[in-house]
Amino acid sequence: MPSPVQNPLRPVWWDASIAPHGALCLIDQTLLPTETVVLTCRTLESVWRAIKTLQVRGAPAIGVAAAYGVIVGLDEASHDDRSWPDTLKKVCDHLATSRPTAVNLFWAIDRMRKSAAGLRGQSWMTARTALLQEAHAIRDEDAAMCRAIGQAGQHLVKSGTGVLTHCNAGALATSEYGTALAVMYTAHEAGRLFKVFVDETRPLLQGSRLTAWELQRAGIDATLICDNMAAVVMREGRVQLVITGADRIAANGDTANKIGTYGVAVLARAHGIPFYVAAPHTTFDLSIPDGKAIPIELRGADELRSVRGQSTAPAGIPVYNPAFDVTPAQYIAGLITDKGLITPVTPENIRRTIGPLAV
Amino acid sequence: MPSPVQNPLRPVWWDASIAPHGALCLIDQTLLPTETVVLTCRTLESVWRAIKTLQVRGAPAIGVAAAYGVIVGLDEASHDDRSWPDTLKKVCDHLATSRPTAVNLFWAIDRMRKSAAGLRGQSWMTARTALLQEAHAIRDEDAAMCRAIGQAGQHLVKSGTGVLTHCNAGALATSEYGTALAVMYTAHEAGRLFKVFVDETRPLLQGSRLTAWELQRAGIDATLICDNMAAVVMREGRVQLVITGADRIAANGDTANKIGTYGVAVLARAHGIPFYVAAPHTTFDLSIPDGKAIPIELRGADELRSVRGQSTAPAGIPVYNPAFDVTPAQYIAGLITDKGLITPVTPENIRRTIGPLAV
Repeated sequence: MPSPVQNPLRPVWWDASIAPHGALCLIDQTLLPTETVVLTCRTLESVWRAIKTLQVRGAPAIGVAAAYGVIVGLDEASHDDRSWPDTLKKVCDHLATSRPTAVNLFWAIDRMRKSAAGLRGQSWMTARTALLQEAHAIRDEDAAMCRAIGQAGQHLVKSGTGVLTHCNAGALATSEYGTALAVMYTAHEAGRLFKVFVDETRPLLQGSRLTAWELQRAGIDATLICDNMAAVVMREGRVQLVITGADRIAANGDTANKIGTYGVAVLARAHGIPFYVAAPHTTFDLSIPDGKAIPIELRGADELRSVRGQSTAPAGIPVYNPAFDVTPAQYIAGLITDKGLITPVTPENIRRTIGPLAV
Repeated sequence: MPSPVQNPLRPVWWDASIAPHGALCLIDQTLLPTETVVLTCRTLESVWRAIKTLQVRGAPAIGVAAAYGVIVGLDEASHDDRSWPDTLKKVCDHLATSRPTAVNLFWAIDRMRKSAAGLRGQSWMTARTALLQEAHAIRDEDAAMCRAIGQAGQHLVKSGTGVLTHCNAGALATSEYGTALAVMYTAHEAGRLFKVFVDETRPLLQGSRLTAWELQRAGIDATLICDNMAAVVMREGRVQLVITGADRIAANGDTANKIGTYGVAVLARAHGIPFYVAAPHTTFDLSIPDGKAIPIELRGADELRSVRGQSTAPAGIPVYNPAFDVTPAQYIAGLITDKGLITPVTPENIRRTIGPLAV
């Protein structure tokens, strides 16, 4: 029997009841929103493929999947008290090739390696038990950060507020709860009634495929719009608050996020609507002074020339397809983090809250 | 042998060489950009269906198709010298049911009716010849307006200019040349090299399906972007000029156009980029004082829940889908019309150029 979808929604989890050793389960995000399929990963190869083919996506969720993937790899190989460190090294090396640009993937794998290094000389079973605890810790710590983000920002979402969000910064991208959506889930749990406008988020439609699905499932009042409708819903007074996630935040608060975020921020400013970014402290990169230092990935033309396999543009038409854009700090009313709400967004306030000397 | 696609591009034309009487030809716009198919309409029913199913779209193009459709209907019925006025009435009444909200459809049909009223008592052949000339005149006058728009605005497009456009205000929407694209075609014919960024224009993708196809065919350097990328191409300095079309312009210059136009105008303002609207004088409605009086059609949810038949959102998710938005006059640097360039956009300048006393 397949493992059921978790409540509250989790994209990745360990199901200990699956014989013989338990298994990694994940929601196949490539099939959403039309099908909700739980994949059971009993082999290293299936974990590798799930990460590679975006069945699991979102930096924290990938990290959690990789951590549990290490356990799957250990279980699959011989349970040998002497050779398990070699097995573990091979498993980690292989998982690291699944998505070479995913920082959280390496971070999670390195953490599993470090934990293993402290277990050398222990039996397979002792090591496996400790490593599974480490994977659970990675998941639980991410969940705790998401919950803290929700707490830090939930007062912004009042009863009757219209909130606009872009892309998917939800449970599906993290261990649970998400970042931007954590704020909404927390306000929802507090019993407040509000409305969310969801940008569909071309080209990959994370808004319509994932965010709309998540919010609908949670019973939150969500309305889907095309990206180009954000301006008009603002002008019509339907929106009082914008919250998005972040891929990377520089020391001055400049924020890289999914393409289209910058435009939403400019439109929010023009309509006098506060624009917030929600992210864990791990998303901050205080080594880069500002957004100019953030490289922007240019993606392939086919994402714009077709939608879900249907051609929508002439063959060979040139395409400009940046995956992200950078929103300058001056457009951001506040940064909602697990360490608290940073407002106004200044390098000093960021350092005080996030920096190495922060509590 | 099918009638070849016209150069310069025309979406609708009369091919006199098709036996026995000639026929209405049109590019089936529902198949663009993947297939370029010329439909030959020899029956009133095929003309009616072409208008109904959007095989021909764009207000002026629909008007031209309906005018020629009257001839198709006359040719198809008995060529009787006495009963042709009755036939003509039935043909016109039927064509008018094809798209009940298309103002240009009624305008063109009424003009054919008026022309016919002056031909009562004439033979079928005399009437048919005069009515075909009237249909040609409707087409030629629209083409002349488009050419004049191109002349009025072409100096705005300098060598090296980056131009951004939204939706399709091109040849495919008119008799030839278009409105916003007329400006670009004229600059192109003048030998200037420039670059056009084409918003794909969700939900119906007129930008990627039609504008990209037109510009590629004309040899103009066109790059396709998602609607949500307009802000970043502006910020990166790739765009110095925005030109869109218009569906309706109020006496003060407030302009209704395809959804997303208002957002582009706000973003252009924020980046110091002039935003122009190109339209024939017939698009002005001086009876309405401002944009608040323009009703906005709300369209169905399926346009946002799927793309070309592929589901992209959860079933039942609420959708907000306005077909148009209104850009306030203060965002518009100028109105490019067949009567000249109106700048700055003030009620006085509009009245002077477009009003009943204008030359």
